Amino acid sequence: MEEHRLTKWNFEGNNGYDKINKASKINIRTVLQMLMDNLNQHENRPVVPLGHGDPSVFASFRTCSVAEDAIVDAVRSAKYNCYASHVGILPARRAVAEYLSSDLPYTLSEDDVYLTIGCAQAIHVILTVLANRPSANILLPRPGFPLYESYAASCNLEYRHYDLLPDRGWEVDLEAVEALSDENTVAIVIINPGNPCGSVFTSQHLEKIAETARKLRILVIADEVYDHLTFGSTPFVPMGVFGSIVPVVTLGAISKRWLVPGWRLGWLVTTDPNGILKISGLVKNIVEYLNITVDPPTFIQGALPQIINKTKDDFFSKTINTLREAADTCYNKIREIPCITCPNKPEGSMFVMVRLNVSLLDGIGDDVDFCLKLVKEESVIVLPGIAVGMKNWLRLTFAIEPSLLEDGLGRIKAFCLRHAKKQ
Amino acid sequence: MEEHRLTKWNFEGNNGYDKINKASKINIRTVLQMLMDNLNQHENRPVVPLGHGDPSVFASFRTCSVAEDAIVDAVRSAKYNCYASHVGILPARRAVAEYLSSDLPYTLSEDDVYLTIGCAQAIHVILTVLANRPSANILLPRPGFPLYESYAASCNLEYRHYDLLPDRGWEVDLEAVEALSDENTVAIVIINPGNPCGSVFTSQHLEKIAETARKLRILVIADEVYDHLTFGSTPFVPMGVFGSIVPVVTLGAISKRWLVPGWRLGWLVTTDPNGILKISGLVKNIVEYLNITVDPPTFIQGALPQIINKTKDDFFSKTINTLREAADTCYNKIREIPCITCPNKPEGSMFVMVRLNVSLLDGIGDDVDFCLKLVKEESVIVLPGIAVGMKNWLRLTFAIEPSLLEDGLGRIKAFCLRHAKKQ
Ligand SMILES: Cc1ncc(COP(=O)(O)O)c(C=O)c1O
Ligand SMILES: Cc1ncc(COP(=O)(O)O)c(C=O)c1O
Repeated sequence: MEEHRLTKWNFEGNNGYDKINKASKINIRTVLQMLMDNLNQHENRPVVPLGHGDPSVFASFRTCSVAEDAIVDAVRSAKYNCYASHVGILPARRAVAEYLSSDLPYTLSEDDVYLTIGCAQAIHVILTVLANRPSANILLPRPGFPLYESYAASCNLEYRHYDLLPDRGWEVDLEAVEALSDENTVAIVIINPGNPCGSVFTSQHLEKIAETARKLRILVIADEVYDHLTFGSTPFVPMGVFGSIVPVVTLGAISKRWLVPGWRLGWLVTTDPNGILKISGLVKNIVEYLNITVDPPTFIQGALPQIINKTKDDFFSKTINTLREAADTCYNKIREIPCITCPNKPEGSMFVMVRLNVSLLDGIGDDVDFCLKLVKEESVIVLPGIAVGMKNWLRLTFAIEPSLLEDGLGRIKAFCLRHAKKQ
Repeated sequence: MEEHRLTKWNFEGNNGYDKINKASKINIRTVLQMLMDNLNQHENRPVVPLGHGDPSVFASFRTCSVAEDAIVDAVRSAKYNCYASHVGILPARRAVAEYLSSDLPYTLSEDDVYLTIGCAQAIHVILTVLANRPSANILLPRPGFPLYESYAASCNLEYRHYDLLPDRGWEVDLEAVEALSDENTVAIVIINPGNPCGSVFTSQHLEKIAETARKLRILVIADEVYDHLTFGSTPFVPMGVFGSIVPVVTLGAISKRWLVPGWRLGWLVTTDPNGILKISGLVKNIVEYLNITVDPPTFIQGALPQIINKTKDDFFSKTINTLREAADTCYNKIREIPCITCPNKPEGSMFVMVRLNVSLLDGIGDDVDFCLKLVKEESVIVLPGIAVGMKNWLRLTFAIEPSLLEDGLGRIKAFCLRHAKKQ
């Protein structure tokens, strides 16, 4: 053993050449872990996890039995123990095409649909394919979802940030988008319903985004992993509705609407009635790349038609009602806390962004400092805004068990009052 | 629409810069698809798929009910609908550590185990991590498993081929390994039991590989996805047994032994009792990279302890007996075919490599030509050796329904007799 330690192995070190380290640092998981490591071990109250969005562990957010039954049936059938086609099995692709077509002015075919390991792999696939063009860059929202930055870094795709505007209901700053882009800009990413803002874009705004992208000759990547999770006055409209203005790649999953993020089934869909993505060679690259990526388990694909077609509306409306009440609770409680303001009441997804006014607090430097002290003193986990690109903001999820949400917001209020500057 | 076609979009074309196309071309699936496209549409006999290894569709190779029950229990528990840790959930990691430790002279801990989406993702992870070193190269077997070449190409990792020697029972040409490697060589890949050769390395040979790697200061990547699938005179010995000579990264999965390749659950394990991989920073890189890769579905991870611990020996021995008989059938039938010779009777995995003597055939140019005509005339799919690195050889799987295997081999014989040169 001693001898081994003295040996210099060829695989040691990497001379500062560390793309992996760079890409893996841009990560919500890492920030949340750092907060968890600061929990007070002597605290008796339960931890309130407002930091990440995974409601599936709570009783109020259990998936429907239809979805569970579909998996059980698929496994018991023994028809799906085999490898799948690299683009996904046909009945599952067809089910997604029909599911999405019902909200579109045209009909998707199964050939427009590629099944992926959650929405995350769909993001990975489209970014890697776009990075297959020399000097390409893409436009990402700020605040945003850091997996985009991380995947872009790992495949050497340059990214540029455009702002979402809190004073305009978190709409896209379209003037900034035009100013940012150049002839190497290949795509703009929009997330709607929005993580981290809880915003829902109006149909008019989506159309403007489409027109701007058309003018700039760039693809729209529409992350709709929170599709249909809206509970305010703005209904969900898929970006694909404007697919005849500009080609759209729609990303989605069963993760959020069916409350099963751990099942890891998603899709990448070309919502592009003019077939521009086919002509341009992008579809060919997607299919080729899927040839060398890992596939979602076949039996989960096999269960998908039943999951999509048999889930009852009352399951969806129960979730929406729970989220609406949670968003209300969250919004109202935050209004009682002087150092935190919420510019827009969340209307979709599971998150809200709130502004932190550190000047009203004693001995708290910034958002990270706030979150660190909060976890130590109150065992409440909140994501510092810097993790999603906005310093001195906070991202909260309200998709947790309602009683725990009230408890957590109460503790945040107590914390803020305790640390408030004396006038 | 016309107008769209005239627009030049920024994401069009890629000026010959096409890493994805290059990497996706090295692919068994692509070759098999090309053969399938040449099936005679007027053929009434069933297609005999001897080209790829997926026995799970055949009644004789159905997985055990224990495995199905484990999945059903995990889904019904609703405990695994949530996201998992990026390295895998603890009980599943622990189950793999115990499973592998039982064949090793030391005990693995759960921290040595990382769960992946099949063995394929484990390959992807270790190659990408090794590619994170400037100018690194790795040694791959020829004949081999082209996913290695494909993944290496996609992450710009140089690879060099060493030969497996048909006249020495497909053992590694260790002299060639020494000659091939230099100070930038970071690892050697071995596949045992072997795909495509059906060979099983003796304990003595494995020890020699370990010693050569130690001398060269390189890591051994042991692909043991066919672990325990041996049915000849040589027992399966895991490479990790020699982990105190040289650090070993062991790759595996439930895909083959449990006959569920579509379930996509595998592992990457550091079998390295001296902790060299930790000291060298490789483990840190693996963990970081897993932070930005997609995870296997949580409920399949949740089912793993039950799958591993409750499967009865009689399920395993039934599979082994079926494979042994199939290998015998295959070997004996091939001996009746003059233009094909099998240098070594397969003792493990699900494959055999046979040499094609085209000089004994009329109007057949090479292995690809042979396979194309065979599929057209006999609806039998066989993989041309060139797809695994050996021109004018063929790779056959014998892991299909026994009656279909006999039928297929009969058709190959008829084909060869029909095309035999008249003396
Ligand atoms: C905006 C956004 N996109 C994609 C994902 C990833 O989705 P999935 O869990 O289906 O991979 C998430 C997950 O939180 C998300 O918030
Ligand atoms: C040698 C070898 N390694 C790895 C794999 C991939 O295994 P999995 O299906 O678990 O991803 C295979 C599959 O055939 C294989 O033959």
